Amino acid sequence: MSSETTASLEGSTAQYARTARTTPTRYRDRANWEREAIHAVLDSTWVCHFGFVADGAPVVLPTIFARVEDRLYIHGSTGSRPLRGAGADQGLPVCVTVTQVDGLVLTKSAFNHSVNFRSVVAHGTAHQVTDPAELTVALDALVDQAVPGRSKDCRPANAKELAKTAVVRLVLDEVSAKTRADGAADDEADLGLPYWSGVVPMSVGYGTPVPHPENTVALPDYLARGLAQI
Amino acid sequence: MSSETTASLEGSTAQYARTARTTPTRYRDRANWEREAIHAVLDSTWVCHFGFVADGAPVVLPTIFARVEDRLYIHGSTGSRPLRGAGADQGLPVCVTVTQVDGLVLTKSAFNHSVNFRSVVAHGTAHQVTDPAELTVALDALVDQAVPGRSKDCRPANAKELAKTAVVRLVLDEVSAKTRADGAADDEADLGLPYWSGVVPMSVGYGTPVPHPENTVALPDYLARGLAQI
Repeated sequence: MSSETTASLEGSTAQYARTARTTPTRYRDRANWEREAIHAVLDSTWVCHFGFVADGAPVVLPTIFARVEDRLYIHGSTGSRPLRGAGADQGLPVCVTVTQVDGLVLTKSAFNHSVNFRSVVAHGTAHQVTDPAELTVALDALVDQAVPGRSKDCRPANAKELAKTAVVRLVLDEVSAKTRADGAADDEADLGLPYWSGVVPMSVGYGTPVPHPENTVALPDYLARGLAQI
Repeated sequence: MSSETTASLEGSTAQYARTARTTPTRYRDRANWEREAIHAVLDSTWVCHFGFVADGAPVVLPTIFARVEDRLYIHGSTGSRPLRGAGADQGLPVCVTVTQVDGLVLTKSAFNHSVNFRSVVAHGTAHQVTDPAELTVALDALVDQAVPGRSKDCRPANAKELAKTAVVRLVLDEVSAKTRADGAADDEADLGLPYWSGVVPMSVGYGTPVPHPENTVALPDYLARGLAQI
């Protein structure tokens, strides 16, 4: 590990602590608590599924997020129910899950079929961001997580817009990654069966940008060179 | 509506009932309770985020699902915590969310940035499937949802494998879709600003299938002609 990397880990550890709920009951070899590995999965996308409990029942909503060091920022509206809950002193218990699907795994038997994927599940208590400086960092990060460099190439939010925007913070603490990146795992006894087995890779691709009808501005470099495939 | 469609709706309705939790507090024009529209979003993918409550806290896990008429089948292991809960008589309160991301929407202002997407959120109580005939239907559907036709072209589960597999059923009842499929919504006052605005389309693509090293079977038609882009 370089001294630079060591410095950046100051005040944190190379691994997040394992707890009962971040230790899977099955396929433990697919689980990972390494800080770098978890951050890599989080940084590969910008869509998460945000879970909370309302009136005793689970609610799971898709939304956008950004990671800044060991914090996740999750975007919402000041009018939305979960984000109001997160504004209370005690915060809101949440589960934030990020999933990337990398391939379909087809095996000779129905049972051994699988999926190649990378996922992160983070548990904790979300709190609303109220400090104006932290809110600016969070809003910039939310834009830059999807399109790196974009926050410096658009009009920042004005006071009226800021008043309508809520962001919650979840500190990464009780978090794990789970990954499968293997070929088809056929049983020895199945190998002679007359069915194709293997992996069909999958990825998210970006198409050609479609400008607003009244847009007269040239496509910026950060879009022209193509966004990273996720 | 054709008589065929009408017949297929027998015993059900063209719209799912709206409830407080399937009526969004914001962007109501993006919400939809139409049965056909909801099924179309569900049928466009096979990955869901499965939410439940454990010890009072939310848990959100990615897994695969299939739709059969007005039922979702969600796959798991008999050893997994949520699926054990769903085996109890009272079932398990769940929220199943399906999300397709169709594009990044970049506007002149940071605030108006958005995402084109299709999502479905289903609330209800999941029950474990115990009837062998229903379990067969569900397991075939789970394979065919990802690769149409595959369940007839692989070895079915044997008794030992079936004993390790748990499937839960969620009846679609309290469910809604939410969709954004528009261009960049710039404020009139922002139109002159020197920032590019428009949409970057996104989709999930399948790559070239990679056979198992010992595979000798030709690529089946249902893979050779390419899986539907999702």
